[in-house]
Amino acid sequence: MQVNVYRKDSHMRRTSFASMTCSVARSLELFGDWWTLLIIREAFFGSRKFGEFHEHLGIATNTLSDRLARLVEGGIFRIGDQAPNGRVLEYRLTDKGKDLYPIIVAMMQWGDKHTVGPDGPPIRLVEKATGEEIAPIQIRSASGKALQPREVAVVEGPGASAEDKLRLRG
Amino acid sequence: MQVNVYRKDSHMRRTSFASMTCSVARSLELFGDWWTLLIIREAFFGSRKFGEFHEHLGIATNTLSDRLARLVEGGIFRIGDQAPNGRVLEYRLTDKGKDLYPIIVAMMQWGDKHTVGPDGPPIRLVEKATGEEIAPIQIRSASGKALQPREVAVVEGPGASAEDKLRLRG
Repeated sequence: MQVNVYRKDSHMRRTSFASMTCSVARSLELFGDWWTLLIIREAFFGSRKFGEFHEHLGIATNTLSDRLARLVEGGIFRIGDQAPNGRVLEYRLTDKGKDLYPIIVAMMQWGDKHTVGPDGPPIRLVEKATGEEIAPIQIRSASGKALQPREVAVVEGPGASAEDKLRLRG
Repeated sequence: MQVNVYRKDSHMRRTSFASMTCSVARSLELFGDWWTLLIIREAFFGSRKFGEFHEHLGIATNTLSDRLARLVEGGIFRIGDQAPNGRVLEYRLTDKGKDLYPIIVAMMQWGDKHTVGPDGPPIRLVEKATGEEIAPIQIRSASGKALQPREVAVVEGPGASAEDKLRLRG
């Protein structure tokens, strides 16, 4: 059930274009597998305890232990309360972890739009202050205008390799 | 290298909370694995031909064929130009596929912020009309205000199961 396409000996070495793929591929490498994203989603829904993640996801305890340890190591979760014997009682999102929220919400909204059944989405995300459903996530310009994919261009960044530059200029 | 955590006999049956997980889990099921997301990213960067995906991703041709076929079947890509012998010359994103753009961009921006090296990001996304870098993706209220995760609540949707409702009310 575990996949590590991006571990050292796989994708990152085989591609002729490794550096351009960095930011998406590195995000994926850290997530590790789909369980990881669902664990993070659960955390945004309020789960903190091992038993809460276990119950809500129906994930095997050894898989859950492994993914939580990896998420702590990767700086996505930090350990909150601990029992006197050192057992972790709470896993809490770090700021780096909280920054994953737009990814989770974008996936949820895409799923709501394109894959739900006739009854509609099982859950909705609302602004606490107003009870109103949050807006669909959009790509926006620096000035706040919503942009379509065709209005966006890929250009070289400061970390572009010689290969990246060649491609982007070609 | 392939993972299908959500195929019938796995997650969706084992969890006690399947319907609540639907939209994120169903999105993940369709993506199939990380290669799929990188193929979609390549399409947003302008790749359409089999050889372009192959060259830019360094992906094995049999894996690429499999993923492209699955993406056509899932309605993410449509077949564009074909050779007289029926060979597919172009894979193009459908509207459903284009709707994945915010997910890709959110992953890229998260990677740029949290995982890039000292040189900075290899690429940047800019608005074609102005050349300015696009804004960081944010969760927004119906009225357009940027929201923090703690300002957002999960409530039941029209498709909530009895279990979902119990949880959300508890």
